[in-house]
Order: sequence, then structure tokens, then C-alpha cells
Amino acid sequence: MRDQFVAWCREAGCSVTIDAVGNIFARRNGTDSGAAPVVVGSHLDTQVNGGRYDGIVGVLAGLEILRSLNDNRIETARPIEVVNWTNEEGARFSPPMIAAGAFAGIYALDWVLDRRDDEGRRFGDELERIGYAGAAPVGGRTLDSYFELHIEQGPLLDAKRIDVGVVTHGYTAHGFIVEVRGETAHTGPWPMDKRRNALVGAAMLAVAAHDIGWKYHATQGKGTAARIVAWPNKPGILSDWAQFTGDLRHEDPQMAGQMLAEFQEIMKSCATRANVEMKIVDQWTWNAELFDKECIALVRDTAKRLGLASLDLPSQAGHDAYHVARVAPTAMIFSPCKDGITHNNQEHADLERTVPAVNVLANVVLERANR
Amino acid sequence: MRDQFVAWCREAGCSVTIDAVGNIFARRNGTDSGAAPVVVGSHLDTQVNGGRYDGIVGVLAGLEILRSLNDNRIETARPIEVVNWTNEEGARFSPPMIAAGAFAGIYALDWVLDRRDDEGRRFGDELERIGYAGAAPVGGRTLDSYFELHIEQGPLLDAKRIDVGVVTHGYTAHGFIVEVRGETAHTGPWPMDKRRNALVGAAMLAVAAHDIGWKYHATQGKGTAARIVAWPNKPGILSDWAQFTGDLRHEDPQMAGQMLAEFQEIMKSCATRANVEMKIVDQWTWNAELFDKECIALVRDTAKRLGLASLDLPSQAGHDAYHVARVAPTAMIFSPCKDGITHNNQEHADLERTVPAVNVLANVVLERANR
Repeated sequence: MRDQFVAWCREAGCSVTIDAVGNIFARRNGTDSGAAPVVVGSHLDTQVNGGRYDGIVGVLAGLEILRSLNDNRIETARPIEVVNWTNEEGARFSPPMIAAGAFAGIYALDWVLDRRDDEGRRFGDELERIGYAGAAPVGGRTLDSYFELHIEQGPLLDAKRIDVGVVTHGYTAHGFIVEVRGETAHTGPWPMDKRRNALVGAAMLAVAAHDIGWKYHATQGKGTAARIVAWPNKPGILSDWAQFTGDLRHEDPQMAGQMLAEFQEIMKSCATRANVEMKIVDQWTWNAELFDKECIALVRDTAKRLGLASLDLPSQAGHDAYHVARVAPTAMIFSPCKDGITHNNQEHADLERTVPAVNVLANVVLERANR
Repeated sequence: MRDQFVAWCREAGCSVTIDAVGNIFARRNGTDSGAAPVVVGSHLDTQVNGGRYDGIVGVLAGLEILRSLNDNRIETARPIEVVNWTNEEGARFSPPMIAAGAFAGIYALDWVLDRRDDEGRRFGDELERIGYAGAAPVGGRTLDSYFELHIEQGPLLDAKRIDVGVVTHGYTAHGFIVEVRGETAHTGPWPMDKRRNALVGAAMLAVAAHDIGWKYHATQGKGTAARIVAWPNKPGILSDWAQFTGDLRHEDPQMAGQMLAEFQEIMKSCATRANVEMKIVDQWTWNAELFDKECIALVRDTAKRLGLASLDLPSQAGHDAYHVARVAPTAMIFSPCKDGITHNNQEHADLERTVPAVNVLANVVLERANR
């Protein structure tokens, strides 16, 4: 997938740079080669059961823009770069958006390279193995701006038959991994009041996260039980170790914080009920309060100029743009996806309903690249 | 482990037979070679985090009895066989006690050989691979009697400083695997009222099984959440598939049945709450109502004759003997283990506190082999 992307970028005349966390930047030079670049992109990785549009649309839109500029022999003052961020989904290495986070200085390089997958393989080693542990430093350079086109991953644009979404802000998400420690024992004779089954503790947390989501459902809050692993996790024996991965999201950052506080409170009672120890061993958060007003306005105005209806809306999913927004003026454009279905093999986006947002992106990039 | 056992048995002059489910029978001939054998044994497999006594003590006790008979040049009328039953624990292939169950005709041979481990490997293929898919038919022959020595896996003998337990009956256990089906979706935008997270359903079942155990705690009931697996079981995505393995146990078979009925009722409400489908795809049960009165009395009387204090008690764990009891007169002898700790690396049995039960077993076997 990476090799194909790099090959297409080189065919389009770009120079390709890979940084130490595997982010790929394909650069089309401007007439002012010293100027800070306009960067567009997204991610090519997907969920295990993911679709073919989440992330991929944004990267290929960037490539298509460069090809169109080439076809029309259009030069720009600033360079334009198309980026593929590594591991946006966090499906294999936790947390998600890890490489964009490293680019923005939120995560330390060594910490990122040391993340492990389920089989204990190191993120840095796996990048080496596939040949994408690049030589370029991670971040630390000035971008004129960053624009990310993404499918909405929600039902609004599709339902309203509007093809351009102007992302004004994003939900706040709190993600975490809780480690649960108990003791192995026999599932038969060992009395209930002596049991310290780590799996029961993790299951209680899963139900709690889901219940908190329901509690905030009226205001569109979400609570997710994403993952449980346990050891030995076998019939006949109680588990002495388990991990629960969950996340809590709300449009209002304060409400999101309240959901997290409630979860942490419930965690204490779950630990008591299951007679185990619980500890949050990993935690991450993001939101998109930092999107750039000028960039947002440029997206909205460009849609209008092109005669396209647009809709202002928040992003409910996490995106690399949230992190990049800390180090560059950033905005996002959404295109519709069928019924809002995503992270599912049924995910679908019609080409004709995606093109309008790509056109807005192209014009936005051209505008910024010549300012 | 199997090779070592077979080597020791051959050194002791036994002929070794392996049946089609890997059960190993080491036979010491009697003077009446056509007579039905007295069989003693247990299992050599352990839990992932198990100890060094559960099962192993019973097999090695049998071998030690044969060696002692050899050393003392004692002949018996009936043959004596020491057996190692395959996969008692069910740690890798579910359900437990599968090969003794096949021997007793409870499970069909083809069904047993077709069980799969977590990696999808077939029980029958794995027996072939390790060279223990034997030629002998499974069961279908007459045993004079079957005696199994096992550590108690409970605290009574250790606490009362009594070294011989006479097992009068066993707890009834109901084990089951519930398959949960939902749908993948994004952990962010997908609204709570559309979510069909299979992992949440499985977690609810885990909590329910544990809670039912507590409800019956006053009468020594047990409810266990043994195992949860889910797919994709990754951060960022809801799982569309999960499996929960649980079991419920009670000394009173009717109470055990009631616990199971309650679980099945709660299962319906969990399926509704989590908005998923649930189905019991595998189910097993056992108890030890069938132990032979004459064999039990012989154990008790032999202890008395040897001047050893004994304690009548039930077995709370499942044992191969429960199944064998359906096709042969059967009894069990318990020896103490420290604090009742089992299925745990701290499991411990003192040799000097194990020898009395082995002596009872030796005398019981001698008695039966000459009757």
C-alpha cells in the first residue's frame, strides 16, 4: 500500500521523504522553494474490519490535486505536500494518531517507537522491517497550513444531500487502557469470597463504559468498550491479568471530562466488587478546539464560490488533523459516506458525491499555495 | 511428558496401549489374563498457570503401585492398568474431560477429534502430530473398577490435618460457550442506540455468571466468567463477534439447574440491553452421583484398616472419574493440598501427606485385583 502510494507520487514528479515514524511526504516544488509548504493528506491504514474510504480518500485526493496541477501546468509559489500519516487507526499499535502526534510534538519519538503490538513486536522495529523507518526528522518544521479531507463517518451529509462538510470543531475523546490484576484459581472449588478474577473486573469496566455512553446519549455522548484481553483466559481457571481498552466522547469538553471522572469513580467500585486491583496504564485525549478560523472560513467561502452547498458540522471521530492543528493552521473538509456507516466492510462513498469536496480542497490548496 | 510416562511404564514391565483419543493405558498382567482389569489413574495435562500435582499425583501414584508390586514380587489375579486421560483440563480444547468422556461413550469419537484450539488446529490432527493418535478403540471394554487419586483442590483435608479423603459425590457443573453476534462500527460517531457491540454483550454475561455465583454463595454455589474472546477486539471499532465461556456449580443438582436457568433468563435481557444476538453454541455438564457405593466403602474401610483417619467429602472440581463412573464401578480418593490452592503456581502437596492416600489406593487396588 505504501509502495504503491510512493510509486504514484514519484510518477507525478514528487520528491518523497519519509520521517522516523514512517510518515510519508510527497512534495511538489513551488517557485519559491524556501517557502513553507501547504500540506494535504490523511492516512492509508484501516481498521481490521474497516472500509476503503476512511483516510484513503484524503490521501488520494491530495495526489489527484497534484496530478491535476501537473496536467494543467499550473505552478504555485509555495510547495505542496501530500502526506500519509502512519497508524492513524491505532488498530495495531495503541494509541491512535500516534505518528501525527509525534509530528506535533505531543508524543516523544522514543516512546512512539517503543509501542508494542499484541505479539510484542515493537513499532520502530516493524517500521524498519517494512523499510519505512525514514531518515527525516519528525516534525520541527514550519507548515503554511494543513488541510485534511475525510469521509464524514456520520449520517448528516448523506441524509441532507449536501456534499461539502466544513468541520468547525471536533468531539473531545478520552481513551484509556486499564490493567486489572487478580489471582488464578480453580473455577470449581475456590469460594466466591476469595475469588480475584481479573476478567470479571475487566467485564465490569466494559459494561460501565457502555452505560456511561447511554447516560449521555441525549447529548450525543458515546461510551465504548473497545477491547478486553485476559490471561490465561481459559476454561477451568480464573484469570490473574486483564486489560480493558475504552473510550468516552462528547462534543462538550467539560462533559467529556465529567464522563471520564465518572468512569474513574466507577472503576473503584468495580475493583472492590471484583476484588482485584485496577490501574489506568495508558491514557490519551484529543479534541479539535484548535482548528484555524481563517482556514475554516477559506473552506466555507471556497465552497460558496464554487456554487456548492456546504454544512458546518463537528467531527465525532478522531483525526490526525487534531494533532497537526497544534503546530500549523489547520482545517478539515468532510465528504459524504452512505448512511454514516464506517469501520465496517459496508462503508461506501459515491465518487460523484466525493468530487465536490475534492474540488473545494484543490481550490483551497491553490489559494494558500499562492498567498 | 507423555514420552516420559510411557518410558517409565515400559521400564516397569508394562505393555502400553494408546487409544484413538490419546488415552494411555499401561497394563501389568494378572494371572487371569482374561479378567477385567482394575484401572487407576488421572491426567498429566495442566492449566496454563497450573501446579505440579493436580492430576499428576494420581497418575504417578498408579505407576508407583505397579513398581511396588514388582519390587515385592506380588502377583494379582486381575490385570492392573494405569491410565493417563487426555485433555482433562480443557485448557486447549473445550470441553474438559473430553477423552474420558469419549471413553465412557458420552462424546462421539468424530466430534471429539474435531474439537479446535484457539488457532483452529484440530484435536485429532494434533494427536497425530505428537504421535499419540493410537490404534486402540476408545472404550467399549469392561473394567472391573476405576479408582482415581487426586489432590483435594479444596482446604478441608489440609485444615483438619486428615490425609485421606473419601469422595462420596461431586458438585454438579454446567459449562457453556455463548456466541454473541453484533456489528462493527466506529467508536466515535456511531450513536449508542444503533450500537451492536458483541464485546459488551459478552461482558454483561461475564458479570451475570459471577453475580449468580454470589447469589448462591451461602450454599457454596460458584459462578465463573472463565473466558472472553472477541473480534476485532481493537481500539476504535465495535466488535461484531464475541464468545463467553462460563460455568455454574452447586452441590445440589437441582440448585445447579436453577442457576443455569437463571443464567439463560438473564442472557435474554443482556442480549436486549446490548442489542446483539446470543446463542449457547456448546454446553456440557457433569456430576458424580454415580460413584459406586461398594467402591466408596472399600476406600473408607481400607483407610480404617490401615489405621488412617479419613474424611467423607464431596468433590467440587470436575474429574475424569465422573465420566468413567458411567461405564465402571468408580471411586475417588483425595489427598491434601496446601490451603486448597490449585490452578495456580503456588499449588503444593507435601509428599508425607500424600503417601497415606497412595497406600490406601494401593491396598484398594490389590483387594479388587484379587477378588
